[in-house]
Amino acid sequence: MATKGSLKTPKGTRDWVGGDLLLRDDIFTVLERHGGIALDTPVFELRSILSEKYGEESRLIYNLEDQGGEACSLRYDLTVPFARWLSMRSDVQHIKRYQIAKVYRRDQPAIARGRLREFYQCDFDIAGVYDPMIPDAEILCIIAEVFEAFKIGVAIKLNHRKILDGLFAVAGVPGDKIRATSSAVDKLDKAPWDEVRKELLDKGLLEEVADRVGGYVQRSGGMREMLESLGSDAELSANATLIEGVTDMKLLASYLEAMDVIDKVSFDLSLARGLDYYTGLIYEVVVVVADSASPPTQVGSIAAGGRYDDLVGMYGRRPLPCVGISFGVDRIFTILDARRNKKSTSDLAGQAQVYIMAFGGKEFDGLLLERMRVARQLWAAGIRAEFAAKVKPKPLQQFNASEGVPVAVMLGQDELEAGQLRVKCLHVGDKNAAQKDKGQLVPRGNLVEEVKRLLASTIAEKE
Amino acid sequence: MATKGSLKTPKGTRDWVGGDLLLRDDIFTVLERHGGIALDTPVFELRSILSEKYGEESRLIYNLEDQGGEACSLRYDLTVPFARWLSMRSDVQHIKRYQIAKVYRRDQPAIARGRLREFYQCDFDIAGVYDPMIPDAEILCIIAEVFEAFKIGVAIKLNHRKILDGLFAVAGVPGDKIRATSSAVDKLDKAPWDEVRKELLDKGLLEEVADRVGGYVQRSGGMREMLESLGSDAELSANATLIEGVTDMKLLASYLEAMDVIDKVSFDLSLARGLDYYTGLIYEVVVVVADSASPPTQVGSIAAGGRYDDLVGMYGRRPLPCVGISFGVDRIFTILDARRNKKSTSDLAGQAQVYIMAFGGKEFDGLLLERMRVARQLWAAGIRAEFAAKVKPKPLQQFNASEGVPVAVMLGQDELEAGQLRVKCLHVGDKNAAQKDKGQLVPRGNLVEEVKRLLASTIAEKE
Repeated sequence: MATKGSLKTPKGTRDWVGGDLLLRDDIFTVLERHGGIALDTPVFELRSILSEKYGEESRLIYNLEDQGGEACSLRYDLTVPFARWLSMRSDVQHIKRYQIAKVYRRDQPAIARGRLREFYQCDFDIAGVYDPMIPDAEILCIIAEVFEAFKIGVAIKLNHRKILDGLFAVAGVPGDKIRATSSAVDKLDKAPWDEVRKELLDKGLLEEVADRVGGYVQRSGGMREMLESLGSDAELSANATLIEGVTDMKLLASYLEAMDVIDKVSFDLSLARGLDYYTGLIYEVVVVVADSASPPTQVGSIAAGGRYDDLVGMYGRRPLPCVGISFGVDRIFTILDARRNKKSTSDLAGQAQVYIMAFGGKEFDGLLLERMRVARQLWAAGIRAEFAAKVKPKPLQQFNASEGVPVAVMLGQDELEAGQLRVKCLHVGDKNAAQKDKGQLVPRGNLVEEVKRLLASTIAEKE
Repeated sequence: MATKGSLKTPKGTRDWVGGDLLLRDDIFTVLERHGGIALDTPVFELRSILSEKYGEESRLIYNLEDQGGEACSLRYDLTVPFARWLSMRSDVQHIKRYQIAKVYRRDQPAIARGRLREFYQCDFDIAGVYDPMIPDAEILCIIAEVFEAFKIGVAIKLNHRKILDGLFAVAGVPGDKIRATSSAVDKLDKAPWDEVRKELLDKGLLEEVADRVGGYVQRSGGMREMLESLGSDAELSANATLIEGVTDMKLLASYLEAMDVIDKVSFDLSLARGLDYYTGLIYEVVVVVADSASPPTQVGSIAAGGRYDDLVGMYGRRPLPCVGISFGVDRIFTILDARRNKKSTSDLAGQAQVYIMAFGGKEFDGLLLERMRVARQLWAAGIRAEFAAKVKPKPLQQFNASEGVPVAVMLGQDELEAGQLRVKCLHVGDKNAAQKDKGQLVPRGNLVEEVKRLLASTIAEKE
């Protein structure tokens, strides 16, 4: 029964192992502090749920094969499944939810830069009717806290869909070309203006209109300064949509000052975000300096999001305004990974707290059953214990296997017959001394208690 | 932009929210205690990796649509991806790994009984060459510990592929019909013997052979008793394969006695397990009594596994013996859920530790910016804090929103000007008294410290 074909994961996917996965816990700690509730949705959705949500990016959606039954596709992000869930749960008027899960895009992968076809996103969203910009400010605060926790220096670029739409209208972009203009402008962080201008002309904009768009969207700066500059332009100030956006941004600036996040944001008129569903504030997070010791990273944006007040309403049940953020977990992994030393296979051993050994003379039978009894006793007390899975392990084998483990329990035939065990601290890095130190004899009944005491003392010593 | 089609999750899938997801942590606690390392693999694998691993069940595999590129399928279990990973990682000689993830089977769903098309499995496996049956015994011990942690009474049914193969050979089943016989016999827990007998005849067994098979496989009992009965049968004792299995089971019985797990197991010759890859010990866990207050559950087996020494070698690189267990997480959810009261939407609010309120007279502006400053300060200290997302919240609104939150921080204009805040415990269930108690004034600089002190005292009081 041989297996044909290559031995690998599918293109654009990878395995994750051990410590890499613990990153999640650090994000969760922040998200739970903000009252987030965990949600988990199926990896595939009815195809109709995903359709008409992603604009030009829809071509990247993975479909399941038609094997009879419903047409389904793998989720493309976590926002649309959340909106679908909200629409089904009409009893939910307000919620903060988070979800960490994989999403799927048939894009060109670049694994070294953390760009994959299957990748983790971690989303936090606030749904419900609240006073303007208060939840938006909390989301920006969460972004700041998450990257503070990871010690990654970031800049948050802000823009507002209504300001963009207003600018485009004032520049003379026809109403039916606003989304197309937006998705061309969104490429300005990767492409020079000339290329974007060409795309605008190809999409049917007049040269004069394209140049006016270019004059507006290439401006960025601090929030206060940009708001002043937009406010002082008489033509822009006459556009009602733009004014709505400016009012939102002024309110936001005051909230970000109160929350001490204002230094982390900039107002960037070229930020447009490709997805169709955004309706207000939008943002993208880029790495400023991971840390001075790291090589420069090329991971692009590591988190992005915005306000989407109409998406839940698209499912026909009821509208519900929402604002949220998606963290690009794999890109954050990539940055943190570059900081650490290369991994060794020793990462693949669990960190035991206690190693159970047995020694004896010529007639020594390995005391396996006794080691098992002790292991079961320690496990039941919640202690991470290990022993050699051999009937008659050699002393040296056991000492080598116990490297890095703080405490040893040692069994000998005579001592067992007297109802006693030997317990001792294993001093890492001083194997000879450790082998000479015989530890202390403990009555069997006191084993758990004595092991816990030793473990606590080893931790105290380290601190 | 209306969305056509029904608003639901695909057939056989469901959403999970809030507390349901915390179940994972309880399982992880046990698995980490046994030195497990987390592994995470892609949700889809190359189709060639999955082929010829699942026998008759292969028809239940979900395929991805051919959109160009490699042929891929959704994973059917977590065992085959683990074996694929081990085969790629030739540096790994020994590992204990766990993985919790969803698997996919195009089966007939029965959601009330916890049978879904997308469902969580949690696997723990031990790979490597060890002395016989020691890792197998540890796996059975882990099973016992996991269900002890959930307080679910279980029975573990054991059998051994070599004993089954030996029995079939002695009964006269031709070598090429052994797997087919096995998968028919596996249905004995759901179907009466007559039906299974008919399937055996349909598969080409002689009546006399089928009846001999029936005589053997309908026997079950305690390990010691069954081993004695098998050993006393002269015809069976002459079969070399069967003897190998019996030797394993004797060793295992002594280990299970040492680990105090022997009372939880029975030896059931009808247990066969459908999957092709098992080579030695096999087991299935069934609920005995969830608890006396619960309705009887119909979830079938809630965990299953066995030894598969040849699967890694099938990928052509190198052989590596393995033994493992899959926990049916959703079925465990279903049992635990039946114990709890019906959920209310209040489960969907995060458990804040501190609620920040503001009060004032006629000129009161809501002190939103101040509430934000305080929130940011508490969040930065790791405290779960909330405030009303309203510019001017009413006192009653704030009191209602703070229900169940242990500590309040209260802001007033005059006090703020004097650099002070009010902090107090909110006594759940006695709202009137709580509203009268004015709390204590604290200098702004001592806020975090004082809140932590109050939180600690509330917890102490509850205990």
